[in-house]
Amino acid sequence: MNTNPPAPLFARVALLGIGLIGSSLARAMRARPGLAGEIVANARTEATLARVRELGIVDRTETDPAAAVAGADLVILCAPVGTYESLAAAIAPHLAPGAIVSDVGSTKRSVIRDVGPHIPAGVHLVPAHPLAGTEHSGPDAGFAELFDGRWAILTPPAGTDDLAVARVRSFWEGCGAMVETMDADHHDRVLAIVSHLPHLIAFTICGTADDLADESRGQVLKFAASGFRDFTRIAASDPVMWRDIFLNNKDALLEMLARFTEDAQAMARAVRWGDAGYIEDKVERGRAIRRSLIELNQA
Amino acid sequence: MNTNPPAPLFARVALLGIGLIGSSLARAMRARPGLAGEIVANARTEATLARVRELGIVDRTETDPAAAVAGADLVILCAPVGTYESLAAAIAPHLAPGAIVSDVGSTKRSVIRDVGPHIPAGVHLVPAHPLAGTEHSGPDAGFAELFDGRWAILTPPAGTDDLAVARVRSFWEGCGAMVETMDADHHDRVLAIVSHLPHLIAFTICGTADDLADESRGQVLKFAASGFRDFTRIAASDPVMWRDIFLNNKDALLEMLARFTEDAQAMARAVRWGDAGYIEDKVERGRAIRRSLIELNQA
Repeated sequence: MNTNPPAPLFARVALLGIGLIGSSLARAMRARPGLAGEIVANARTEATLARVRELGIVDRTETDPAAAVAGADLVILCAPVGTYESLAAAIAPHLAPGAIVSDVGSTKRSVIRDVGPHIPAGVHLVPAHPLAGTEHSGPDAGFAELFDGRWAILTPPAGTDDLAVARVRSFWEGCGAMVETMDADHHDRVLAIVSHLPHLIAFTICGTADDLADESRGQVLKFAASGFRDFTRIAASDPVMWRDIFLNNKDALLEMLARFTEDAQAMARAVRWGDAGYIEDKVERGRAIRRSLIELNQA
Repeated sequence: MNTNPPAPLFARVALLGIGLIGSSLARAMRARPGLAGEIVANARTEATLARVRELGIVDRTETDPAAAVAGADLVILCAPVGTYESLAAAIAPHLAPGAIVSDVGSTKRSVIRDVGPHIPAGVHLVPAHPLAGTEHSGPDAGFAELFDGRWAILTPPAGTDDLAVARVRSFWEGCGAMVETMDADHHDRVLAIVSHLPHLIAFTICGTADDLADESRGQVLKFAASGFRDFTRIAASDPVMWRDIFLNNKDALLEMLARFTEDAQAMARAVRWGDAGYIEDKVERGRAIRRSLIELNQA
């Protein structure tokens, strides 16, 4: 008669970076004990790690990423994507045989480009991107339910070990997410239009509005509640994270911005020449598409 | 000893158009009996007027705008701004001496241009714009509290009778709004950046996303919840109303779109050339501006 609990999915999980996403993962693992035996956290600053110890959301903290990954069977990069290459170089010699390296970054081609070459033989790279977040950052901002009912997209390179992919899928499902697998190119194009371009626009239009300050500062500030405020809500997110996302999804982002700009210029031309039918068609179409998105997401 | 209630601010108010805004005004007047003696509604279709009678939110309905305005001391245009010129022409001969003509349109130079020339001597034009609304339309969508704590902007042309302006101010304050007066040019520039351009962008990017359908339709629809959904919330509003707004604030809208496009292109160039400092600065600035808008609006 065996009364021991079943072994957890991963015996030791190392989180490199422990902000909103990393600390939410730590809390999600704590909330479902079958996912991880030991949770180890590394962060860029000792102050962050001290705060993580106060919060009591991991089992151990390590100031050296190499020490954090030693003996871990799952390593998750939870730092801005611009740090991945140096993190990968630092941890590569210390990865355990058979370990899985994953991440939570918003760009996926860049992960394969920056991390892939450092992965030793016998270690598996399974990039992942949970489509979840809030406008807050840091280890205090996380919560165990962040991934509940949200998508996590896996982008394993061709030839990745099936069992490693299946284990990462189980991990995200265990954290409450729905899992989809696609190739990194596809991911980056889809995210460019549904997330990266809207963020670029939101950041930009705030600046455009502020540049009117000399003429209209008081009024712009006073009346911004009207539409502008909701429209720019997503501009509240972390600047370093977004700088890295823009730089690491350059091709798809520039292509989507070019397509959007063409469409906006066509609308501008219709406005200039008073083409009421064109404008009404486009407005109606945008509205219908938005409505179908909502219905699909609610279905 | 006089036990009669004081006379209402306006003895008879005529609403030309009774959708979201007009029906909210009717309900707000009903909720505060000191504002209007009789409330008369006109609409383009008899079906709308039948529904308004069922709702019981006005005292009388008239299918002819001329009949609706006869004897009214306040006439409020609550239809899309593109209809104003023909409405003004139709009602002009029937306006009572001393009456005030106002409106609720989102563009104000166009009101002075389209309605002004029809206003007879002794009648006062006091254009107004309540910065309030929802994504719903029609007489069922209105509610008495829509204007509570929201701005109503008055744009009386130079030389407008002070008492007429003061009475319109009292009317909007009675409906719960805060009132600000400015010139129509200024209004149109401010609204172009805080409302009209964000709507143009939101309508447009929905189309841009849908045009990717052949390649990525499933994924775009599936993952649009991530940022895109909130960002495009404002794209749910009425197409005819927005067509008319775009056409009637052409100059300011095209100028703001040109400024925004320059700024977006500068960001695109920085992304293309990997100028991390520029991107981080702009993202940080956009974020700081958004934060200050929120703080100001909450203060």
